[in-house]
Amino acid sequence: MSTEIELNEYNLIPPQTGAAFTLKKGEFLTVVDPLGSQVSDMVLFNLEDKKEKLSSGKTLDFEESILITEGNFLWSNRSHKMMEIVEDTNGRNDFLLAPCSPETFQIMYNNHEEHPSCLNNLKVNLSEFDIELDDIPTAFNIFMNVQFDEKGKISVLPPTSIAGDHVKFKAEMDLIVCLTACSAEDSNGGTFKPIHYVVTQV
Amino acid sequence: MSTEIELNEYNLIPPQTGAAFTLKKGEFLTVVDPLGSQVSDMVLFNLEDKKEKLSSGKTLDFEESILITEGNFLWSNRSHKMMEIVEDTNGRNDFLLAPCSPETFQIMYNNHEEHPSCLNNLKVNLSEFDIELDDIPTAFNIFMNVQFDEKGKISVLPPTSIAGDHVKFKAEMDLIVCLTACSAEDSNGGTFKPIHYVVTQV
Repeated sequence: MSTEIELNEYNLIPPQTGAAFTLKKGEFLTVVDPLGSQVSDMVLFNLEDKKEKLSSGKTLDFEESILITEGNFLWSNRSHKMMEIVEDTNGRNDFLLAPCSPETFQIMYNNHEEHPSCLNNLKVNLSEFDIELDDIPTAFNIFMNVQFDEKGKISVLPPTSIAGDHVKFKAEMDLIVCLTACSAEDSNGGTFKPIHYVVTQV
Repeated sequence: MSTEIELNEYNLIPPQTGAAFTLKKGEFLTVVDPLGSQVSDMVLFNLEDKKEKLSSGKTLDFEESILITEGNFLWSNRSHKMMEIVEDTNGRNDFLLAPCSPETFQIMYNNHEEHPSCLNNLKVNLSEFDIELDDIPTAFNIFMNVQFDEKGKISVLPPTSIAGDHVKFKAEMDLIVCLTACSAEDSNGGTFKPIHYVVTQV
């Protein structure tokens, strides 16, 4: 997987895989759910200093909301804006739950067989940038439909996204971006679909 | 601040400061709000390998709840149990928001003067263990009263804890623990109070 992305070209992330690439400040990234009801986990690192990275705690704090969508910013652990969400045609994303990992399937689903996972796909693709497993933060889970009640009880439901729904981000700094096409049955309505993305200058 | 804690002795964290210490697997840590309405941020690291640390994303995922209290476990980024909450006399804690930092006061409160913060107190106390600022995760915010509605809107209210309320944790692995007496006006009902803690074997 090359980390050089052609501007304006649609890029495919096959089901249960991932991709990592750089995005320059001011460029736009559009993440598309081409078939509907498919989650894409996204993590971000400062290209110039990879110790600075996406932070769910800082984002929820500064944006004063659990639900992050159009008009919100994604913030780093150093309290800098990393991206702005400039368009969100679906409007439901999650920033509570960690990427699915081999342990997710073992502990939550009692599935001890080999299973693809977002965390492993993030690790494999970020290894090109010398980013290690332990340094991967909680991801921004695009299109993920995590419901919660006033008592805090969490339920993972199928995404409400339909074919063609997309979220468009503007980079606020030079970034390393890693995206997945999520591998967890319950998060994606039981089937695994691809994710598309495109980088543009407007 | 010594990192050796006497068993059964009450330890004081003065207002707007912090403390770091080790806790052995099977030992109990009780964090007390001695005057009421005071938050204590807590972060955890595996004593044997500090790349393993507390994870809000993993905890909310495995516990299937935003609100973490008696009966819940605190999980690491490697999907291991770090602590069990065995008693919680107040019952309201937060695991959404990042520790208050100098930037919290600058960005959210437009206060550009020097201001104590949990993140700085975590950094100063964890430096004894060679843990750096960028490696400090989102804290488990004991007694913090973060309310949210079904649209995800977050409000920080004064803690509901009264004098003597406490949360008792059991260590599930050998740990480095860092606690603060929180420094943010809005999180503590406008005044800064101490936190007490005690380590016991039962």
